[in-house]
Amino acid sequence: MARKATTIVLKFGGSSVANSECIERISKIAIRESKEHNVIVVTSAMGKTTNQLIDLANQVCPGCDGRELDMLLATGELVSISLAAMAIQKLGHPAVSLTGWQAGFVTESSHNKARIAEIKCDRINKHLELGEIVVVAGFQGITEDGEVTTLGRGGSDTSAVALASAFKADRCDIYTDVKGVYTTDPRVVKEATKLDHISFEEMIELASLGAKVLHPRSVELAKKYNIDLRVRSSFKPENKGTEVISLQRMKDMELTKAVTGVALDTKQAKIAIISVADRPGIASKVFGELGKNKINVDMIIQSVPRDGINDIAFTVPREDMETAKAVCEEILKDIEGSKVEADDGIAKVSIVGAGMLNRPGVASTLFETLSQAGINIQMISTSEIKISCLIDEADATKAVQVIHDAFELEKSSEPIIV
Amino acid sequence: MARKATTIVLKFGGSSVANSECIERISKIAIRESKEHNVIVVTSAMGKTTNQLIDLANQVCPGCDGRELDMLLATGELVSISLAAMAIQKLGHPAVSLTGWQAGFVTESSHNKARIAEIKCDRINKHLELGEIVVVAGFQGITEDGEVTTLGRGGSDTSAVALASAFKADRCDIYTDVKGVYTTDPRVVKEATKLDHISFEEMIELASLGAKVLHPRSVELAKKYNIDLRVRSSFKPENKGTEVISLQRMKDMELTKAVTGVALDTKQAKIAIISVADRPGIASKVFGELGKNKINVDMIIQSVPRDGINDIAFTVPREDMETAKAVCEEILKDIEGSKVEADDGIAKVSIVGAGMLNRPGVASTLFETLSQAGINIQMISTSEIKISCLIDEADATKAVQVIHDAFELEKSSEPIIV
Repeated sequence: MARKATTIVLKFGGSSVANSECIERISKIAIRESKEHNVIVVTSAMGKTTNQLIDLANQVCPGCDGRELDMLLATGELVSISLAAMAIQKLGHPAVSLTGWQAGFVTESSHNKARIAEIKCDRINKHLELGEIVVVAGFQGITEDGEVTTLGRGGSDTSAVALASAFKADRCDIYTDVKGVYTTDPRVVKEATKLDHISFEEMIELASLGAKVLHPRSVELAKKYNIDLRVRSSFKPENKGTEVISLQRMKDMELTKAVTGVALDTKQAKIAIISVADRPGIASKVFGELGKNKINVDMIIQSVPRDGINDIAFTVPREDMETAKAVCEEILKDIEGSKVEADDGIAKVSIVGAGMLNRPGVASTLFETLSQAGINIQMISTSEIKISCLIDEADATKAVQVIHDAFELEKSSEPIIV
Repeated sequence: MARKATTIVLKFGGSSVANSECIERISKIAIRESKEHNVIVVTSAMGKTTNQLIDLANQVCPGCDGRELDMLLATGELVSISLAAMAIQKLGHPAVSLTGWQAGFVTESSHNKARIAEIKCDRINKHLELGEIVVVAGFQGITEDGEVTTLGRGGSDTSAVALASAFKADRCDIYTDVKGVYTTDPRVVKEATKLDHISFEEMIELASLGAKVLHPRSVELAKKYNIDLRVRSSFKPENKGTEVISLQRMKDMELTKAVTGVALDTKQAKIAIISVADRPGIASKVFGELGKNKINVDMIIQSVPRDGINDIAFTVPREDMETAKAVCEEILKDIEGSKVEADDGIAKVSIVGAGMLNRPGVASTLFETLSQAGINIQMISTSEIKISCLIDEADATKAVQVIHDAFELEKSSEPIIV
């Protein structure tokens, strides 16, 4: 078997390699693709392995991170790659597994969320020349000093896209346990429809908003290198899945829509600082202190000042709510505020669509839809292709449902003109 | 913290790192020793991890071995070293974990039972200079070509002894879940006594005979480099354990005994080839064919020829019995034999003692003891410091008990003169 003219990267997530049956299934996919292409497979750790390893670490040393946590977490993918290589061999095709360092993943030296500095392609090339399917451990690399690093959340997707770029792959298929990217979470709205196409930009917004199929970091990277990225199901490989393509191509294909999907995020909490002084430096003080405490702030609203005082409200990850509240209370005197309120009973519902900008009326349709359903909007934030509303968590499911209906997303495999 | 004048190696087996509580326990042992010495810790995989990984491999690819199995099995130790390093750090002492390749273990390129070619000491030295406890993954290494290898059965003990030699360690403590080396298996004979001292030679024989505390390969290595080797319990670290020392030192200390221990091996089967021709080349044909099939033969008996024909009997690992029988049946015509018999209902009971050679009567005491207990001896083999008898498996426990009694091994912490 010799090297083919084209190369593709296939990434299989934890649920696609959860047991021996799953591993056999993905091995067949890899072998089928190898008839036409050189195949580089990237796997995540099996099933819930990474979480189990984190639990173990917390038993031994609660809150430990850094170098040793990377050493521990990197083992998960080593198990799945060797099993996948064995399974492929058993089905009669030559295969080899490579750890992050063997595969040439050089990262910067920060632990737990290192960025890839370089992929040294020699060793993978050597195995591709031999006609072998190369199974690479996702999520990990090595520093110039020989220290094992991991890439953080979404690391395996990022590994796959980085390989697709380094090997000028024709395609990067991200296999998961769902058939593709949906107009919204099918568990919330049963009419949710799989999208055949989505732009990188929309995918980044949806991914950031909690659609778990792809990590925004990997989509950013795919956009940067213009990788042909597909989201597919390893359980239904015959399905074409969702193709993530450039916005220009979406436009050329007349596929851009006002609203592509609805996303729901119930993992945030709201903090409000009441009656702070309306003078320069207040916002930078507040968000500076939160930043020092490594708290990511998402939505921010500063109300119109009234009588020289202001309210500032923002959202943070729910697990950081208490810390964020304490941080704000500590600086309350400095910023001349009266009190800090925290609320974890909120949800953020968002619509995303690359065609939003050119179609007026999308925002008002959204607000009217929520209003007619009796749902109060607490905060609003917008970007070029996204509108997010903060609402009561109790209304979350209903909100997604009425929005999905209002924009007729159940017909979403056809382009919709609002 | 700076480097100390002396270095010791502490090896912890699977049961000593089975959970977070165990890992904390061994971390305290390492920290205590680090007050006086530079400490290199070697760990096995946690509990039954290696067996679980083998089960996984067999689910995916029954009987797979070679490179990918090594990739898989090497992960077990990576989990335990990172957890141990975290636990030591949590207790306030600097520590670092190193994989086999990071620790400089270079092996020959055969997989699944590679031998160590070299330990490159630079990286461990660098960490010892910093006053860190260095936690090294046992059982594994890397070839010159960057392939991960494992050392096979007893690999972690071998890693520890090799490190003790490379770093000229004052001591190599092998921590396990028993207090040391016993005169026989305490589960079989309740009067079994822990030995304070044993010679390398006796330990090798006992280890080969199935005393599971130390692998013979590691004892061979310790003997070769004259390492001060101790077997201790991580659950009772205050206990001094058993010191494995040179035969000369045993003699100098007047500690050599006619019988040091009794070992029982119930994992063998007997094959007998009946009535083969009594001519040159028969034995080499039989054992040559078995060797080609990678079957290890232990005891061999060829009876005194009678009327130009012979019987050949030997023992093999029980799991290889059917294969061995088939191999023999295949060559039965060539060697002019009449039939092949196989029996897996046998056991091998052995006595070991460095003082055996100089004390006549040991063998006859053994045979008489068995005879008086009504136990029939099917085969006998002897070495300088060992006598083994093959008996019916049903008599195994009784045999060990009566032999232990006959040689008064319950008094064994004192020297015995037969």
